[in-house]
Amino acid sequence: MAPLMEKGGVYKVAVIGSGNWGSVATKIIASNTIKQSIFHDDVRMWVFEETLPTGEKLSETINKNHENCKYLPGIYLGSNVVADPDLENTVKGADMLVFVTPHSYIKGICKRLAGKIKPEAKAISLIKGMEVKKEGSCMISKLITEVLGINCCVLMGANIANEIAEEKLSEATIGYREDQEVANRWLQLFATPYFLISIVEDIEGVELCGTLKNVVALAAGLVDGLEMGHNTKAAIMRIGFKEMRAFSKLLFPSVKNSTFFESCGVADLIATCFGGRNRKVAEAFARNRGKRSFNDLEEGVLQGQKLQGVLTAQELFEVLIDRGWEDQFPFFITVSKICTMQLPPRSILQCSSVLNSTQLEF
Amino acid sequence: MAPLMEKGGVYKVAVIGSGNWGSVATKIIASNTIKQSIFHDDVRMWVFEETLPTGEKLSETINKNHENCKYLPGIYLGSNVVADPDLENTVKGADMLVFVTPHSYIKGICKRLAGKIKPEAKAISLIKGMEVKKEGSCMISKLITEVLGINCCVLMGANIANEIAEEKLSEATIGYREDQEVANRWLQLFATPYFLISIVEDIEGVELCGTLKNVVALAAGLVDGLEMGHNTKAAIMRIGFKEMRAFSKLLFPSVKNSTFFESCGVADLIATCFGGRNRKVAEAFARNRGKRSFNDLEEGVLQGQKLQGVLTAQELFEVLIDRGWEDQFPFFITVSKICTMQLPPRSILQCSSVLNSTQLEF
Repeated sequence: MAPLMEKGGVYKVAVIGSGNWGSVATKIIASNTIKQSIFHDDVRMWVFEETLPTGEKLSETINKNHENCKYLPGIYLGSNVVADPDLENTVKGADMLVFVTPHSYIKGICKRLAGKIKPEAKAISLIKGMEVKKEGSCMISKLITEVLGINCCVLMGANIANEIAEEKLSEATIGYREDQEVANRWLQLFATPYFLISIVEDIEGVELCGTLKNVVALAAGLVDGLEMGHNTKAAIMRIGFKEMRAFSKLLFPSVKNSTFFESCGVADLIATCFGGRNRKVAEAFARNRGKRSFNDLEEGVLQGQKLQGVLTAQELFEVLIDRGWEDQFPFFITVSKICTMQLPPRSILQCSSVLNSTQLEF
Repeated sequence: MAPLMEKGGVYKVAVIGSGNWGSVATKIIASNTIKQSIFHDDVRMWVFEETLPTGEKLSETINKNHENCKYLPGIYLGSNVVADPDLENTVKGADMLVFVTPHSYIKGICKRLAGKIKPEAKAISLIKGMEVKKEGSCMISKLITEVLGINCCVLMGANIANEIAEEKLSEATIGYREDQEVANRWLQLFATPYFLISIVEDIEGVELCGTLKNVVALAAGLVDGLEMGHNTKAAIMRIGFKEMRAFSKLLFPSVKNSTFFESCGVADLIATCFGGRNRKVAEAFARNRGKRSFNDLEEGVLQGQKLQGVLTAQELFEVLIDRGWEDQFPFFITVSKICTMQLPPRSILQCSSVLNSTQLEF
């Protein structure tokens, strides 16, 4: 496939983030911009600059080797990917902004970008998590829209990054609000023969699926560590899935049941509860009988990557207490308390009977 | 716990079947009949008589040791379980009939029992599968009702038998039609602190979940054998789950979406696609690149147990062709054709893109 050197294209794409998932997303996008005339070939990727043990800058090695040797070693990103350590320069003139940073950085990044992006630019968030505020929780897509004043979609799904990097068949879901045309443009940017995308008009449902499933994955990992077998794991996942739906619908009555049957729902739940790192650390936590903290285990198991589920469990806990919903969500409350070592790992097996007897119906 | 020797009880229970799942079900039931005064203590279990290598009869060893040494070794069934090789004697005077035989035997058994059971007896089926007839498919619960003229519920769920035998936490779903009181009585008979039951008024939905998930598990096993990873497996399971819903609702418009969120739905799908024997044999099939037939592999991997999924896939194929629905169910058709070696294992990866582009909506 020869690159179309002369092609200028209409839409210029910038990716904000260059971790594991950010690098994979950039690789996918770069393979599409070069093939489709509606996009500008070059994809600019913001790199939080690091100096590698060799003394080289991360952004420089990416531009030299077209590979992110730290967060996605061994994968060719595309010669049309330009790594840029300057955040403001990355988004300059960009029409499509892809946000894929750790969720604790997104607010600061948006504030730095305010007033410095094209007013008609569109955004998409690949970030899992919520901002918890006194006046209630706020989804990341909403935060981006509020701070930057632009439309923001989300992309979530059963997307373990390294498997997509190897071009193994995967699916994902784009959630949008009202503007389907914009959602279709994001679909064009992301869809490949090995990365199948569907779009649904339920941004909160899609985003909450992507966020909450990490909490269920912690519970699944606990069950693995307790060596309870397939039935128990499936039961705990089902109960967690039920609370995901119930919580999403309480928070946003517009959330659709059908969203939970999409890749962002049941499929992401499955992939994360069997393959993700939240599961992995929670399994280690249960095997240590809750005697080593998650923070401690994270360092050993994940080697520097942050664990999203523990953070989300705490955010969720605050929302549930703040709204007085704790009795309706015994599963979420139990996972949160296990993470903070207020309850032992085995208590995950008790919350299920509580839930079953209360017969929550949504 | 001392057995209540004098207790006569109202409802007499008979279990028709004594394989792996039948023996576990009998153990659960026997632990409940002895504790609850509405049930007669004794549970009579029909045993398809076999002579063991020792020369002893299977039924005799069960009655002597209170253990099914062939299909559930090492598990105490309860001293109130009576193994009986005589089918008609087993059901004599029984008020509650639990059917848990291989699905190919059920029709013959019902015909033998017709006219020989209490007219007011109630039945429950734990059997997965369909009867395919020229005039359309027939669920097992309906077959029991038609041949015996009695009410029949179903019990399905994420129930890998050996794990429940070890009293590991599990859930199940009872599906009923109209008569909730009967469903509640079955719940009383089956529910234990480690076996959590919910009831739903959607007998066809529950039964079809239990039946169709075995076909999805074959696909999941193929993906395992092809070493495609978590995302692909989750995607294939999701697509299969989608066709399960679509097919169930086409066949019975009364089927509810909510049923698929119960243990019989998403949880059974998960347990079966990760822990079941359909998955296991399909994985071996894909690793052999489809060069050894399922029949051949079954013998090696399962040592005499029959593989439900392959049978169901063929029944499903006949129904789909008969009704002209094959274009709407590319996943089911592909699995069927892989089972009969008309397509190679890898073709499971293609059917997903077809489905995605047709955007089936249910």
